[in-house]
Amino acid sequence: MSKKLFIPGPIEVREDVLQKMSTQIIGHRGKDASQLQQNISNKLQELFYTKNTILLSTSSGSGLMEGSIRSCTSQKAAVFSSGSFGDRWYKMAAANNVPADVFKVELGKAIESEMVEKVLSTGNYDLITVTHNETSTGIRNPIEEIGEVVKKYNDIVYCVDAVSSAGGIKIEVDKIGIDICITSVQKAIGLPPGMAICTLSDKAVNRAKKVPFRGLYFDLLEMYEYFIQKNFQYPSTPSLSHMFALDYQLDRILKEGLDNRFKRHEDMARLVRNWAKQHFQIFTDENYLSNTLTVIKNTQGISVANLNEKLQSRGFEIANGYGNLKEETFRISHMGDYEIEDIKILLKNIDDILGFYK
Amino acid sequence: MSKKLFIPGPIEVREDVLQKMSTQIIGHRGKDASQLQQNISNKLQELFYTKNTILLSTSSGSGLMEGSIRSCTSQKAAVFSSGSFGDRWYKMAAANNVPADVFKVELGKAIESEMVEKVLSTGNYDLITVTHNETSTGIRNPIEEIGEVVKKYNDIVYCVDAVSSAGGIKIEVDKIGIDICITSVQKAIGLPPGMAICTLSDKAVNRAKKVPFRGLYFDLLEMYEYFIQKNFQYPSTPSLSHMFALDYQLDRILKEGLDNRFKRHEDMARLVRNWAKQHFQIFTDENYLSNTLTVIKNTQGISVANLNEKLQSRGFEIANGYGNLKEETFRISHMGDYEIEDIKILLKNIDDILGFYK
Repeated sequence: MSKKLFIPGPIEVREDVLQKMSTQIIGHRGKDASQLQQNISNKLQELFYTKNTILLSTSSGSGLMEGSIRSCTSQKAAVFSSGSFGDRWYKMAAANNVPADVFKVELGKAIESEMVEKVLSTGNYDLITVTHNETSTGIRNPIEEIGEVVKKYNDIVYCVDAVSSAGGIKIEVDKIGIDICITSVQKAIGLPPGMAICTLSDKAVNRAKKVPFRGLYFDLLEMYEYFIQKNFQYPSTPSLSHMFALDYQLDRILKEGLDNRFKRHEDMARLVRNWAKQHFQIFTDENYLSNTLTVIKNTQGISVANLNEKLQSRGFEIANGYGNLKEETFRISHMGDYEIEDIKILLKNIDDILGFYK
Repeated sequence: MSKKLFIPGPIEVREDVLQKMSTQIIGHRGKDASQLQQNISNKLQELFYTKNTILLSTSSGSGLMEGSIRSCTSQKAAVFSSGSFGDRWYKMAAANNVPADVFKVELGKAIESEMVEKVLSTGNYDLITVTHNETSTGIRNPIEEIGEVVKKYNDIVYCVDAVSSAGGIKIEVDKIGIDICITSVQKAIGLPPGMAICTLSDKAVNRAKKVPFRGLYFDLLEMYEYFIQKNFQYPSTPSLSHMFALDYQLDRILKEGLDNRFKRHEDMARLVRNWAKQHFQIFTDENYLSNTLTVIKNTQGISVANLNEKLQSRGFEIANGYGNLKEETFRISHMGDYEIEDIKILLKNIDDILGFYK
């Protein structure tokens, strides 16, 4: 039933990592559970280049995104959107009656820091959201430059959706000044789906204290206070299976070396981009290309559904375009634990199916 | 690191079930994922004796409880509480600015249908919550009799927290008239924690349509509509690992036979109760005893911490009292896939440690 997944998450998980999902369960209120979380926290602080608190959530990344914008918007949120996943932040705000405005860029373009500066200079906002890696368009937004703008203002809580980038692209949380950096384990981190991660700054914690009606399960303040008081534990029973696997996989990631891992993602991206340019076009502004997935403009008018069906019969799977771009583009992800060789084999199979060798 | 857990969840998971957690990941938007969910839905409908829609949530049970009271209270919720987990419903309502009143009974006592009748006859409420199995006191509340009361009123959405009972105690959802019956997989269903389940009636769906600001991740209407339109799929990426294991475990449960499974839980409960009466006292009103855990009054003033430490060195773990009952009681769970023999071995070890044979 399983295929080698080159969709933008979930992706194929290494066998040894998968095996850790079968670890026998321990009590979630015991010392072993605290120790497990502490180990995970330490390693994730390395991965995110941060001293901020690390929280896990038994949910998809969307849950923590919703929790962030709801828990930490006191005045009004400015949602910067470069596609479907940016728009989702706005949908979350609206569904929770959180005051928010959305600022969109053309699909395939990036959110540039000048735009953010202009919006923040109005003084109307106290939280911003940026999608690091827009999975619908393949844009990597310049979160570092945006961070420089945010630093000019005192009271902005800076939220970054790094769901499809963390673990594959370097994110220096403290240097950039990100208050809440959110990711999900089934993308570049290379685990099965079912757990989300965020980093949480003191500024974000203090902001939440001023916000009423933050809900409970995704109330970042509730989670944080419980976590601090109860020695690295959570208000609700977490997915211990994911924690065992995450602990193990983070060891693997740190052993590979973060720079090596990011370099490997860059190399895989370059390979796919070159192939795409040879046969199609890159959909995305080339100044802001993601290293974890490539969105390709379907200039040959191929049937992506047919291609994917044939690929699947060979044991591979890629993704069609997302949302409004469904017909116009297709997407190949190159994240997690794939090697250059895996990408070459995939591309060779696509060449073969599309007759690029004939 | 792992012990045989007799805490009220998570519990020890069978090796063959654990192994299913390591199944290689599939795309969550493909036909195989739809089929997997459809299989799970069919089997859970059997387990809950219902034709209602089954939804899974990648979260603990608390997430779906919060989602229910928030999504489906239009006028005001009546929260009936027999302990900490009943109180939690009220905390959830308050955290979401959902109008609610809480009606409490003495710890160790049950919520009787007369009380519910009196409250509903005021006409002030359009949703009620009842904890089937109050894990802090060992009470099994009479959800069937309460259901008879609810049936007299047209517009009450009846929510039941069956987190620590479903899979171990019979719950005939349609016959009782439960609109939303919620459970979590790490209790009597016998899986690792990380996924929650609910049944959802048309009445609950229609109610949610009248409620503004239901949030997103736990918005039952959003989940339901996506599920129906997108052929058994979810708005966010679910924990596929839990779905593989749940699908397998439900086959096991149905093969054991539901009545056999419920009988086994009853037999394990009787054993623990008899032992408890011999050496201590049962904390709970004996007319409403749970079959999945027993709460024991610490009449001998033993140090439960010491007992548990010694038990743990022998590879077992029980639970101290919950919340305000921490010192006064201790708890032994008997749920999931344990057999009578497992319970006998546990009790023998406790006897041995406490010197009951001397």
